[in-house]
Amino acid sequence: MAIGTTQPLVDVQSSHDHRDIDITKVGIRKLRYPIELATRDNGPQQTTAMVNMYVSLDRSFKGTHMSRFVEILNEHRAALDIHDLRYLLADMKKRLDAGDAHIELTFPFFIDRAAPVTGQKGLMAYDCQVAAELDHNNKATTCFGVSVPVTTLCPCSKEMSDYGAHNQRSIVSVSWRCTESIWLEDMIELVESQGSSPIYSLLKRPDEKWVTERAYDHPKFVEDMVRDITAELRRDERVVWFRVESENEESIHTHNAYALIEEERG
Amino acid sequence: MAIGTTQPLVDVQSSHDHRDIDITKVGIRKLRYPIELATRDNGPQQTTAMVNMYVSLDRSFKGTHMSRFVEILNEHRAALDIHDLRYLLADMKKRLDAGDAHIELTFPFFIDRAAPVTGQKGLMAYDCQVAAELDHNNKATTCFGVSVPVTTLCPCSKEMSDYGAHNQRSIVSVSWRCTESIWLEDMIELVESQGSSPIYSLLKRPDEKWVTERAYDHPKFVEDMVRDITAELRRDERVVWFRVESENEESIHTHNAYALIEEERG
Amino acid sequence: MAIGTTQPLVDVQSSHDHRDIDITKVGIRKLRYPIELATRDNGPQQTTAMVNMYVSLDRSFKGTHMSRFVEILNEHRAALDIHDLRYLLADMKKRLDAGDAHIELTFPFFIDRAAPVTGQKGLMAYDCQVAAELDHNNKATTCFGVSVPVTTLCPCSKEMSDYGAHNQRSIVSVSWRCTESIWLEDMIELVESQGSSPIYSLLKRPDEKWVTERAYDHPKFVEDMVRDITAELRRDERVVWFRVESENEESIHTHNAYALIEEERG
Amino acid sequence: MAIGTTQPLVDVQSSHDHRDIDITKVGIRKLRYPIELATRDNGPQQTTAMVNMYVSLDRSFKGTHMSRFVEILNEHRAALDIHDLRYLLADMKKRLDAGDAHIELTFPFFIDRAAPVTGQKGLMAYDCQVAAELDHNNKATTCFGVSVPVTTLCPCSKEMSDYGAHNQRSIVSVSWRCTESIWLEDMIELVESQGSSPIYSLLKRPDEKWVTERAYDHPKFVEDMVRDITAELRRDERVVWFRVESENEESIHTHNAYALIEEERG
Repeated sequence: MAIGTTQPLVDVQSSHDHRDIDITKVGIRKLRYPIELATRDNGPQQTTAMVNMYVSLDRSFKGTHMSRFVEILNEHRAALDIHDLRYLLADMKKRLDAGDAHIELTFPFFIDRAAPVTGQKGLMAYDCQVAAELDHNNKATTCFGVSVPVTTLCPCSKEMSDYGAHNQRSIVSVSWRCTESIWLEDMIELVESQGSSPIYSLLKRPDEKWVTERAYDHPKFVEDMVRDITAELRRDERVVWFRVESENEESIHTHNAYALIEEERG
Repeated sequence: MAIGTTQPLVDVQSSHDHRDIDITKVGIRKLRYPIELATRDNGPQQTTAMVNMYVSLDRSFKGTHMSRFVEILNEHRAALDIHDLRYLLADMKKRLDAGDAHIELTFPFFIDRAAPVTGQKGLMAYDCQVAAELDHNNKATTCFGVSVPVTTLCPCSKEMSDYGAHNQRSIVSVSWRCTESIWLEDMIELVESQGSSPIYSLLKRPDEKWVTERAYDHPKFVEDMVRDITAELRRDERVVWFRVESENEESIHTHNAYALIEEERG
Repeated sequence: MAIGTTQPLVDVQSSHDHRDIDITKVGIRKLRYPIELATRDNGPQQTTAMVNMYVSLDRSFKGTHMSRFVEILNEHRAALDIHDLRYLLADMKKRLDAGDAHIELTFPFFIDRAAPVTGQKGLMAYDCQVAAELDHNNKATTCFGVSVPVTTLCPCSKEMSDYGAHNQRSIVSVSWRCTESIWLEDMIELVESQGSSPIYSLLKRPDEKWVTERAYDHPKFVEDMVRDITAELRRDERVVWFRVESENEESIHTHNAYALIEEERG
Repeated sequence: MAIGTTQPLVDVQSSHDHRDIDITKVGIRKLRYPIELATRDNGPQQTTAMVNMYVSLDRSFKGTHMSRFVEILNEHRAALDIHDLRYLLADMKKRLDAGDAHIELTFPFFIDRAAPVTGQKGLMAYDCQVAAELDHNNKATTCFGVSVPVTTLCPCSKEMSDYGAHNQRSIVSVSWRCTESIWLEDMIELVESQGSSPIYSLLKRPDEKWVTERAYDHPKFVEDMVRDITAELRRDERVVWFRVESENEESIHTHNAYALIEEERG
């Protein structure tokens, strides 16, 4: 074993590259990592994230230094703030000698929800994402995302049928960029309020009756879901870009119904 | 490159092993492979499978010969019959010098289904499995499996609510061993007949009305699904062992409701 | 059951919508479907696809007609040509009264590969994608994609170490738009030629020796993979846009190394 | 809405069932839940679990009470101890009027690992499982599981090749039942010590050289992995049953090599 010899190990990555090709993104993917998140209503929340980190690589460098991504993440771990990842990104740009830097975090976010009638509490888990970048002009952009399960009930089925109406679990995803921070909790609640009914992890019989009847009273096509949320988002001046998707896991088909609206504030 | 030298390459795997430990199963996993299946009502069907193949390995051998698994599969490909995999398994035992041999195939199986009112045709895909083994006494055992999506509608929700009832996509899986072959199609139809309603890939408005009302008229708990299928399977003398599972992708929760019954004929 | 009554069932989807919101995409997702593909060297190949189909929806319509997507796919099934999906897309636009239409197909594609020394044949499966759209001016655009597993061996590890070098399975994905058709087989072979070594499903001992030594002789960083493929794609005049990604499933980490280059012909 | 009426809502689940069929397991699946784990070397660790909970259901009951599973989990959350889940299971049996009770938890478990030469720290994530049951005689059984990524290097490739040797990420899974508690950390370290080399999340150049050479010095077939771990587990008197699996994500194939040994102490 050569460790301990006086010869330093060669740094292949830093050698000059002759192909004259810039790399758009290079880095690490699928690093699992425990993180702490600030919450709107309670103290910090511990959860587990999947992390991707990239930088651009100038044509003159043969390779980036992969271990530094993990080092930088370790150093910023204690103070990680999903609403302001600029310090971490600036560190990535500096220590990896890069024009721009990107980080993506996906994680389950837990909210304690009270059942609609009995008020019994149960934890709901929502898949969330944050993707932040700092470009070559040091302009920071952050895109947030939430995936929210709701019940949707088919208006056509209700209208045609003498009784009943098929309904299903729908996964409604909203991604957005904003001029000032929006709590994940606020966006999750906006989506839940637009479903035929919100979903809960703990429902007693009076709650189940309430959810059933609420869904029947508020039938929604997949098109209605994305339109009604779009109408809400257009009213929120902080939102400068958004994408709303609903994927309805149809109870009467094995394929899903799907709709998407993407808009940028003019 | 040393290819072409007269020295044969050493066969490390065949060398003697001194640890005195039998290996239960050794082989290959997650090999994707196109296969042809016989169908009950039409000619052969082309589909794509994920294949696992294992043998036991006696304590005296250092390793098995991985490439032979793929060779054997290639040779048997044209005549692969999921209802009789003994020739392939016997070949595995012989050429891999093994006490027992196992093969597992999972694949989508397509059936053309007519909508209940308009009769319009649409292809349904069902995830199916076959796991066959030939033991050290050359006794063959095959376990078949189908996963069938159906609609289930909650009896409790129907009973309590003034109108409507929550329903969902449920995945009902049946695994079985039998004394004589049962068509995958027959088992799929048995399961579909027991749902609150079968599922279709193509439904026009009169069909959707029929499916909605049929589900409302046939509410089923997850417990009812596995019990009603169990009652059917107990009546089929060919079935010597079975496991029935239903996983209901609840429209009112993000977790699933689940039930399982496993029985062996006495 | 009301079927057979003289009252026609109401068409809720066609009713007028007052929210004044266009929908970017609406349709079906995750429909599994058997397809037949033309191949470069042999006859047609049967495989199984996952299909998404969408149209845009004008603000004046309340909903699209989901069942028509499946009907149109059924009608075009026999003559489906991934290199020319315009007829299917035109049909979608017409029958769904839509400004633009989209179809996405993902499927395993099988190629019989000869081992490098012994010439033994084994089937390789490659994940492929086709995404085609027809816009409101009836301009068709198709994006193709292949995911190709190769071996990559780390140049830094080779350089520093007295012997050996860590290597891993890498998944290299290329997406492209082109002015004239490129066979999936051609792009797959281009990628395989750029790995430290191609990958095979069936290797005998002399082949395994060849693959091992070839990989050691051709070390490649994740950055080299995307740059070398980029150099090749720049030379192909038919390619007007491409994205090359390599995700290296590192044998020395649980996270992956990753690089991406995206370029549009000027 | 009928809430507030004096009529109590009917309890359909508690009604008598006439089919005379016991249900093996009924309950909830895929509930995501934050949990706290005791660790061997540090304080408690926060992580996120996927939870399944089941009870058996006697033939006389129509259904179980799904909401109680979530209630019981909520109540035991603060004091959840994966090494002793008997109180929770006893509560399930009692409140669900059941003969036996089962809980399954799967979660990432994080350990801070020092790189082998530089000693730099990096967090590794390991997928772990705990499955506990309390049977009709109130006998408790717990099965633990860890999935540990390691590097394995092919002895045959090393032996045949003039230089180099293919190696890969292998996922080694050990499940066990024991007479007294074994720390997850201890089992993870046992597995890591048996790989061609352990895996780290953060390696600097001297570490990477060490890992490369260590793997080349310790070649292991998939068969060696499961045999060497078996030899260790046979020596541990606390282990009464175990299953060892290694799935090698071959760098020279797209399928995986696999071996399994399962043994019960006689």
